[in-house]
Amino acid sequence: MSDLPKRVHLMEVGPRDGLQIEPKILTTAEKLELIGMIEDAGITEIEVGSFVNPKAVPTMADTSDVFAGIKRKPGVIYRGLSLNTKGVERAMATPNIDLDGRLHVTASEVFVQRNTNRSIDDTFRQLPEWIALYKKAKVPVDGVTMMAVFGCNFEGDIPVQRVADLLARTIDILAEHGETLKCANLCDTMGWANPEQIKRVVGTVRNRWPKLQIKLHLHDTRGLAMANAYAALQVGIDEFDASIGALGGCPFAGHKGAAGNISTEDLAFMCEEMGIATGVDVDKLAAAARRAEEMVGHPVPGKVMKGGTLTEKRRRT
Amino acid sequence: MSDLPKRVHLMEVGPRDGLQIEPKILTTAEKLELIGMIEDAGITEIEVGSFVNPKAVPTMADTSDVFAGIKRKPGVIYRGLSLNTKGVERAMATPNIDLDGRLHVTASEVFVQRNTNRSIDDTFRQLPEWIALYKKAKVPVDGVTMMAVFGCNFEGDIPVQRVADLLARTIDILAEHGETLKCANLCDTMGWANPEQIKRVVGTVRNRWPKLQIKLHLHDTRGLAMANAYAALQVGIDEFDASIGALGGCPFAGHKGAAGNISTEDLAFMCEEMGIATGVDVDKLAAAARRAEEMVGHPVPGKVMKGGTLTEKRRRT
Repeated sequence: MSDLPKRVHLMEVGPRDGLQIEPKILTTAEKLELIGMIEDAGITEIEVGSFVNPKAVPTMADTSDVFAGIKRKPGVIYRGLSLNTKGVERAMATPNIDLDGRLHVTASEVFVQRNTNRSIDDTFRQLPEWIALYKKAKVPVDGVTMMAVFGCNFEGDIPVQRVADLLARTIDILAEHGETLKCANLCDTMGWANPEQIKRVVGTVRNRWPKLQIKLHLHDTRGLAMANAYAALQVGIDEFDASIGALGGCPFAGHKGAAGNISTEDLAFMCEEMGIATGVDVDKLAAAARRAEEMVGHPVPGKVMKGGTLTEKRRRT
Repeated sequence: MSDLPKRVHLMEVGPRDGLQIEPKILTTAEKLELIGMIEDAGITEIEVGSFVNPKAVPTMADTSDVFAGIKRKPGVIYRGLSLNTKGVERAMATPNIDLDGRLHVTASEVFVQRNTNRSIDDTFRQLPEWIALYKKAKVPVDGVTMMAVFGCNFEGDIPVQRVADLLARTIDILAEHGETLKCANLCDTMGWANPEQIKRVVGTVRNRWPKLQIKLHLHDTRGLAMANAYAALQVGIDEFDASIGALGGCPFAGHKGAAGNISTEDLAFMCEEMGIATGVDVDKLAAAARRAEEMVGHPVPGKVMKGGTLTEKRRRT
């Protein structure tokens, strides 16, 4: 009936994508407490923070300190996000970080112009410099994260052909430098995707590059994140970014109350209920989400953290 | 790739299921304002209220007054919920109501005992009395609503075989009275369903009674409502209950903040984005949800009402 994977890998991005636009800046100790709870719940890959301009994103100013404070748990991978070569250089000087040779591109011309004052072409012209940096540090460059793949608030719909073209360009540039793209993280940065579109885009990419590992980064801005994840599971996607408590919503005027990332514990709950292993203790992860809610000081959109899992209810009955 | 329907019918249950456990009791005028906005958004079937004990459910005490205040819009069906024969009698004395000959049963023995102090068998023994009442009023008895089909907080998992058995009993009793079951509304009353289970239960029921129209009533208690709806669409389900703003959450201790019904505007948004017609203006429905949020006086979980549809963004770009 469907091609659901047997096992799914969830990367927790709450400490980075979840917290980055929160009005309240958590202390380094609070972030470390959350990371500890997330590890303890069985998550094995955590995006700890990002190396961006602390003036532009003050919530991430202490990323190096957070890394320095980590007591590494065996089997857990600690990631940091770098959006430019300066960020990569900072990441390389950071203790306890697991560097991944991941490039970042954007599928929306208007979005990348607004965010970085550069064009898509400019971004691609800078890739060789990124690749050289990674190679110098002996980090294989095998991943790309593409933002705004499914639509853009400032540009509208994004044609799937453009996504494929940009992936092809990335693959070509990597090949010129003796590197091979192994994983593409396709991001629904602004919550435009619907389930049928997820299947179409994944299908298009997979038809062209059957061996490419596809990962999804979903936002719940319009309530479709979980349906999109289910659509992705049906076509065999087994790797997702997610954020405890569905953190990452927009507290600012205009989009006030808009939802954030897909919730890690809700996604893990859905997988486990359907017999897909996640390695995660959903009850523990829900407890971490409730602790995060206390820390940020306002209700967050996660559901299982409030409705509860079925574990205890099944035991009791 | 899938059997998505071309058109979906959404019944708005917000004025009933959405408001019934809200701590703040809306005025009759407020309810009528909401119903007007919902009609204006293109919804053609609305559950206006329920005929239950006003002491037990004070939010529904004015149901008859709300019906009396309705200015009927052509093409719109106005429903009232009756959970027992006394309720049916009250419904029959109400102006502006579109009576449907719908029986109510529950798939959880523990839940029905807790709620009504009767067993499932007791419920079935009372059905002939319901049927006689409807027949006396010349209302065809052709529907059944079954609660707790997918699991129960007090009983645990509900075997699909029990659901099928209870449907068979209902069909037999109706046949004894010369009536035919045409529609079964399967309710995930406490938010236990997962997408694969939706397909299994729908498949089991449909294999046995291929002509039976199946409708779903989904709750988002654990965040899976929209994924469950997508699973249902994939197996051709084209009728859903839903509540503007995802009203119907639990404001009480123990389950505080637990989510309510699936959001009508979010579900309509998903359908329309996938090319499934709903007849609904999602922007207008989102405005109704925002008005409902103002009325109840606390944030409600609907997403599109905060994140916005894509209509304006596509026009602008």
